[in-house]
Amino acid sequence: MASYFNEERSAEIVNERMGRDINPRFREIMSSLVRHLHDFAKEVELTQEEWEFAIDFLTKTGQICSEERQEFILLSDVLGFSMLVDAINNRRPAGATENTVFGPFHVAGAPERTMGDNISLDGKGESCLFIGRVIDLNGAPISGAKIDVWSDNADGFYDVQQPNIQPKWNNRGIFTTGADGRYEFKGIKPVSYPIPDDGPVGQMLEHIGRHPYRPAHTHFLVTAPGFQKLVTHTFVGDDDYIESDTVFGVKQSLVAPFAHTPEGPTEWVSKFDFVLAPTHP
Amino acid sequence: MASYFNEERSAEIVNERMGRDINPRFREIMSSLVRHLHDFAKEVELTQEEWEFAIDFLTKTGQICSEERQEFILLSDVLGFSMLVDAINNRRPAGATENTVFGPFHVAGAPERTMGDNISLDGKGESCLFIGRVIDLNGAPISGAKIDVWSDNADGFYDVQQPNIQPKWNNRGIFTTGADGRYEFKGIKPVSYPIPDDGPVGQMLEHIGRHPYRPAHTHFLVTAPGFQKLVTHTFVGDDDYIESDTVFGVKQSLVAPFAHTPEGPTEWVSKFDFVLAPTHP
Repeated sequence: MASYFNEERSAEIVNERMGRDINPRFREIMSSLVRHLHDFAKEVELTQEEWEFAIDFLTKTGQICSEERQEFILLSDVLGFSMLVDAINNRRPAGATENTVFGPFHVAGAPERTMGDNISLDGKGESCLFIGRVIDLNGAPISGAKIDVWSDNADGFYDVQQPNIQPKWNNRGIFTTGADGRYEFKGIKPVSYPIPDDGPVGQMLEHIGRHPYRPAHTHFLVTAPGFQKLVTHTFVGDDDYIESDTVFGVKQSLVAPFAHTPEGPTEWVSKFDFVLAPTHP
Repeated sequence: MASYFNEERSAEIVNERMGRDINPRFREIMSSLVRHLHDFAKEVELTQEEWEFAIDFLTKTGQICSEERQEFILLSDVLGFSMLVDAINNRRPAGATENTVFGPFHVAGAPERTMGDNISLDGKGESCLFIGRVIDLNGAPISGAKIDVWSDNADGFYDVQQPNIQPKWNNRGIFTTGADGRYEFKGIKPVSYPIPDDGPVGQMLEHIGRHPYRPAHTHFLVTAPGFQKLVTHTFVGDDDYIESDTVFGVKQSLVAPFAHTPEGPTEWVSKFDFVLAPTHP
């Protein structure tokens, strides 16, 4: 009788049913999830019709997923859940460059480039020189750091979204720092773009009165032995969407300067230092 | 700056982003959902790998859904969420028969039967006479009540799960009460069965140390003008799984007597009155 369902103790009853010899971490996660899900339903007094709507939404979200599309990650992103998980797992000492979401467009194995190379292979967009250093918390240069960079092209698409239009590895490359910790390469000043909004997540955004845009940004994955992996972007500060990134990826410290150069109105320079935190403080 | 992400105010920041002119109920639901999801991630300090596991689980759960299978409903069921939503939406005055989950196996349009008919068409299983009355809270008979009944067969499958094996409408039928409110029909003493456990939900049950079985039950949908729709089961009390229904559908008041009859060891009688609550108390 003790285990029969009742509304008041619903979550406890479900959680008490778990076996004795299960993985303790899985028990902790599932217990908390069940408690919060039940609290949610009770708080809003979810109706049967709303439950049916939710079942249908989740089903459609799963069914639109494919090799090229991950709608559940998109859902996690627009609800700020991805950024929260990123934040929880990447708390850093003051002064270290902050993390932000990894996103779905990184491709492992990009070509190794030489400092000064241009990673924009399609000749589109406004040229930008990216310069700076990879340093530790004391400002000392980090030698042998790998800077894996990727961004959209001037039309707002990553190369993998347009395999028949853009050159392979367009706006991608890996640079390795020398003893001075410096990096320097050419690319484009990135542009803002909408996340795929023709599926269930796009419809949800419309219902909650939000746009699907991300402000212009360049992705960086910076690694060096003895230091925490840094997954981040630099953002263009005057972007229309800088204060309303649909995936909540912007942090104040990641808004980078993009300055004009004497070479012309479509020539930019963006200087940004990556400060890595040590693996073992 | 105010809307940039930070860990501490993560849920508020996401919710503040919602538009002004959206459906107030949708705002209430989404705000609560975001708050509880973020609280969950913070409480367990969800790791990146666990997040990836969850994304993969949800994706597989969506992708296994088909015309014949609804894995997200199954997930909701085994987490007690379906029962909770049912409970919230069907609070009844004392004395009224309690609701339980509808389940995925009801089929609209079952044949109208005459009192006394046998709904078991495949000749399998132990015969059972179901008798009782449909009455109001004062014990007065309700005339013209429709009793839509469905159950598995003796092998533990509903007819729709075995379209090429069982006769169509096996163990299904609709009965209409007369002035005395009485019903009477023959069927089988139902048997316990596992929910479909060869998908992601089955794997989850295994990880939390739970079996996939439902105790034996007969489904009833009882409707009458002026009364609240009753969606319920009656359960066989001595079933091995009566205290551990994997979807938490059992309530003490729904455990029905199944008594032997003088006709033989495989002949049963189960007497149960359905007490309907008025639509407008």
